[in-house]
Amino acid sequence: MNAIGVDVGGTKIAAAVVSPEGEILNEVRYPTQAVPPNRLVGTIAGAITEVKDGFEVGGVCLAVPGLIMASINTVIFSPNLHEIENIRLDEEIGGRTGVRVTVENDANAAAWGEFRYGAGKDVDHQIFITLGTGVGGGVITHGVLLRGAQGAGGELGHVTLDPDGPVCGCGNHGCLEALASGTAIRRRAREVANDYPGSALGRLAVERQVLGEDVTELAREGDEASIRVLKETGRWLGIGVAGFVNVFNPEVVAVGGGASRAGDLILEPVREEVRLRARSPSRDLVEIKEATLGPASGVLGAAALARGEDGEYVLGPSRRVT
Amino acid sequence: MNAIGVDVGGTKIAAAVVSPEGEILNEVRYPTQAVPPNRLVGTIAGAITEVKDGFEVGGVCLAVPGLIMASINTVIFSPNLHEIENIRLDEEIGGRTGVRVTVENDANAAAWGEFRYGAGKDVDHQIFITLGTGVGGGVITHGVLLRGAQGAGGELGHVTLDPDGPVCGCGNHGCLEALASGTAIRRRAREVANDYPGSALGRLAVERQVLGEDVTELAREGDEASIRVLKETGRWLGIGVAGFVNVFNPEVVAVGGGASRAGDLILEPVREEVRLRARSPSRDLVEIKEATLGPASGVLGAAALARGEDGEYVLGPSRRVT
Repeated sequence: MNAIGVDVGGTKIAAAVVSPEGEILNEVRYPTQAVPPNRLVGTIAGAITEVKDGFEVGGVCLAVPGLIMASINTVIFSPNLHEIENIRLDEEIGGRTGVRVTVENDANAAAWGEFRYGAGKDVDHQIFITLGTGVGGGVITHGVLLRGAQGAGGELGHVTLDPDGPVCGCGNHGCLEALASGTAIRRRAREVANDYPGSALGRLAVERQVLGEDVTELAREGDEASIRVLKETGRWLGIGVAGFVNVFNPEVVAVGGGASRAGDLILEPVREEVRLRARSPSRDLVEIKEATLGPASGVLGAAALARGEDGEYVLGPSRRVT
Repeated sequence: MNAIGVDVGGTKIAAAVVSPEGEILNEVRYPTQAVPPNRLVGTIAGAITEVKDGFEVGGVCLAVPGLIMASINTVIFSPNLHEIENIRLDEEIGGRTGVRVTVENDANAAAWGEFRYGAGKDVDHQIFITLGTGVGGGVITHGVLLRGAQGAGGELGHVTLDPDGPVCGCGNHGCLEALASGTAIRRRAREVANDYPGSALGRLAVERQVLGEDVTELAREGDEASIRVLKETGRWLGIGVAGFVNVFNPEVVAVGGGASRAGDLILEPVREEVRLRARSPSRDLVEIKEATLGPASGVLGAAALARGEDGEYVLGPSRRVT
């Protein structure tokens, strides 16, 4: 049966009716900024009601950034969405819409989307890493989404790679996120631009703030300074990924998010570190590749997570989902 | 039904008949050194036949150090046990003994032992780390042993914690194993003994080679230099454990192996790093404690792994075991 995935983000709320095969049958979007105060729950419920119109659906899953306790369908903490913290979203939104509602971390949902319909669709063991402002992650082992005891598992961005490294948004030093996020790319671009003022990157940095997209574009045009930024970022990402490869022995590591659009400019250094630092046979098996679904991974994964094994809709943190 | 666990180690082969409740009903041991060339398979089969005498058993699991492909019951590589590499042990040993035989990595088996009968017996999510010559690991999430695609998962000792750190036995730099194993403790003890020649540790180091046990004993007696060695080791272990806590959101981290006998002298610095570096709520939930089964975790875990869900004896890498 069809299901609804809702991607509740800091910039937009996207709700989609998705077929079991992963086809988006209907979709609505609202800019989060336009939601009046205290209307977030109502807006999400409204989006569900609107997108559902005329479709039979078996369930809804909300993909939300931050800390989720999937077992009680509650958002414990979400950086820009405090309004939906610490309420039973299954009851609040389920009650208003008449469909079963579950909640999942957005990176876990995107990981599940790639696993069901994207880069990992033919395997049983997949790691998903998303490089945005931060570094998010989701892990599927033996076909099961790794949630951990409280639904906080799969938090790949805050493993320490360099205890004396740059400070991270979380307050620690040398986290993967501090070394390989979009934010880290911008910081590194400023440093490299200073060192190579005559490069295309150096010249752009004088004009305006350099964005991650700029670095990718200049690197594609052959600017050595920009290539260096991506290579160094990929190297750190690779040190982290090598550890995950040893720990999980996955078939696929799928890298998504904005910075992944640099493709092999960032992924080739990742592969190099994995060859150096991961152990056989895990390093020989694993394929490190770009995620394939783009921003749709969230709604697609959420919809698939709303659907339980054998087409049944189930709740709870250790449900085995298909 | 009873099962047999066999711990096939570099120093001894221990085979035990174990009840479903984890009671050792019969046990035999052979020193590995005493096994004549080309007689290792025969010796293991003989130990099984001998220990089984008079007991009804449903299956056997061999716990072997090194790289195991559980799906084909084959040891791909084992540092000191080349004789049993790349043969179908289920067929070779199963054929000689008339019981079903499976194979598992020794750290995975020990992890499963602690999970079923020891430090993790009341939880669903447990990480096990063993500090011996190297650092071994095993992970249980959602009640399932993490084997990964080829049975090589749970390799916790070779995550990078410091890319420019000391060289590891695996050839890389700054692995957890290079920073927190028994070998690392001995190296660090030599360094600290040089820095503090007047300490008890410094004086012992002049007389003879300092062992891990010496460091623990001197630290217990209050020697500041030895306490420092354990604290620094615990700090690095804690940096690794904090990452695992973020990734797995486990209820328990059980630390076993020789060095774990230092107890809180090594575990308190681990807890401190986890408080600093792991994220809420994972860091608040997790309990970091000493493993409780000692060296018996291997045979106990192996016997439990021979036993499938609902008392059935099943083969294969993604079997769900109870």
